[in-house]
Amino acid sequence: MKLATFSIRGGLPEIGVVDGARIVRIQPALPRLASNMIDLIDRWDDARSAVQQVVEDAAHVVALDQVQLLAPIGRPGKIMAMGLNYADHVAEAGLEIPKHQGWFCKQPNTVHPPYAPIQIPKASKSVDYEVELVFIVGKRGRHLSRADAPDHIFGYCVGNDVTARDWQMRTPQWVLGKSFDSHGPFGPWITTSDEIGDPHRLGIRSIVNDEVRQNSNTRELIFDVFDQVTYLSQAMTLEPGDIVFSGTPGGIGAAMKPPVFLKAGDRVRCEIDELGALDAVFENEA
Amino acid sequence: MKLATFSIRGGLPEIGVVDGARIVRIQPALPRLASNMIDLIDRWDDARSAVQQVVEDAAHVVALDQVQLLAPIGRPGKIMAMGLNYADHVAEAGLEIPKHQGWFCKQPNTVHPPYAPIQIPKASKSVDYEVELVFIVGKRGRHLSRADAPDHIFGYCVGNDVTARDWQMRTPQWVLGKSFDSHGPFGPWITTSDEIGDPHRLGIRSIVNDEVRQNSNTRELIFDVFDQVTYLSQAMTLEPGDIVFSGTPGGIGAAMKPPVFLKAGDRVRCEIDELGALDAVFENEA
Repeated sequence: MKLATFSIRGGLPEIGVVDGARIVRIQPALPRLASNMIDLIDRWDDARSAVQQVVEDAAHVVALDQVQLLAPIGRPGKIMAMGLNYADHVAEAGLEIPKHQGWFCKQPNTVHPPYAPIQIPKASKSVDYEVELVFIVGKRGRHLSRADAPDHIFGYCVGNDVTARDWQMRTPQWVLGKSFDSHGPFGPWITTSDEIGDPHRLGIRSIVNDEVRQNSNTRELIFDVFDQVTYLSQAMTLEPGDIVFSGTPGGIGAAMKPPVFLKAGDRVRCEIDELGALDAVFENEA
Repeated sequence: MKLATFSIRGGLPEIGVVDGARIVRIQPALPRLASNMIDLIDRWDDARSAVQQVVEDAAHVVALDQVQLLAPIGRPGKIMAMGLNYADHVAEAGLEIPKHQGWFCKQPNTVHPPYAPIQIPKASKSVDYEVELVFIVGKRGRHLSRADAPDHIFGYCVGNDVTARDWQMRTPQWVLGKSFDSHGPFGPWITTSDEIGDPHRLGIRSIVNDEVRQNSNTRELIFDVFDQVTYLSQAMTLEPGDIVFSGTPGGIGAAMKPPVFLKAGDRVRCEIDELGALDAVFENEA
């Protein structure tokens, strides 16, 4: 199932199921389940068949191009993100394959809709894109084994780990350079795990204007998403609605010779097979 | 005013005002204002005089030692934290005074009550304390000047930036070593800014069992809290209820020769003049 958060003509956010070129609204039939994606994820085991029935009934549908898609989760509890997790990206950074998973995070002010314009901040001269497979935690858990991990992933989507490179590299800690307002778009919707099966076989690409910049496959992840769940859960209780950016492949603007950063008017498309695409224009912060 | 979040005999969290050895409950008089600290902070300009009146009426009071104090904010939007911000701590780390503010963060699973036992996780052999002045953002804002900053700080409290040093140092990124469950206690309550005036004149100490380990003054901060608000807000919109750990002074266990880490049964007290103290025993993760 593909679950989207959206708004109709600027109305309150609601949840629907994407079905081809339309969205089936679940709000009219299941109002209590349709206002908060974290809540829905948390209750998914019980809610799933009711949602499925609403989709089959299709009593309330709206064309996908008539709604405004929002970030699937408006306020994730955690937004974790892994660095240096594709070999070609490690090479372009001039580093060696890491022995340990390298985790940083993004802050909730980065959450942003999949097609909305993204800020080139006043304070940065080197804004860059990073397409990533994002997974969404489905169940609370700590000390999860690799065998437990698939059952704790609710679904997948596309993320753009937009980065202010000057701020990222100003100190050894990346968090602030990764946390500018609007710099964490993800979506365009969540595709549930059962629909994807093995997530490590998906083409992943970013396209700036008409130029393909990143072009890889999630099979190239150094630490795969199940390793990530296992490792993170040694430290932290994972919770429904936590989201994880799993790393970006080679081809970032900072590694071009000479480096090329995003400028106002650039359009960046981030796409992953079977999961859809983010597509947004960058514009100068007002 | 000193605002605490607490529970009476395991009941729902409520907000009260600490007045000496008692807490004035504001729940019975102002039920809509007394269930969520972020909400209260957000509405403070309007709510303040009503809360003040409730304190003066003191119709519902309970002894401080009869309640369970909880983290003042159960789910902060952001938990930012600065590294290397006291000269003696920079020196003990063998580093040079930084030119730029070094920001990392903690995750919401670290939020923890001021007196509750803190985990020594199964996965870490080197758990350490860090007493810090914590400030709470009061008003939404971006691109705040130093002159704007005081008006955007709602209040102050004590924090213990508990750290799994082995995980902190395993990769260049500190976030995961700073984000184990229970490793971000703060409180014991929020003292509003007006009651503190200048926050850069407060004695700050940590005491492990009966030994004073850290003993400094907030006047020693390299980047003071107003600089911090200004810098962070270049990147991110700050929001009511965001919390910021402002850095720790010298005297951490990792810098002792040889290093001494916390073990089950150790009691750590973190105190700051006028703001109160955290006081908790460490225990092995179950």
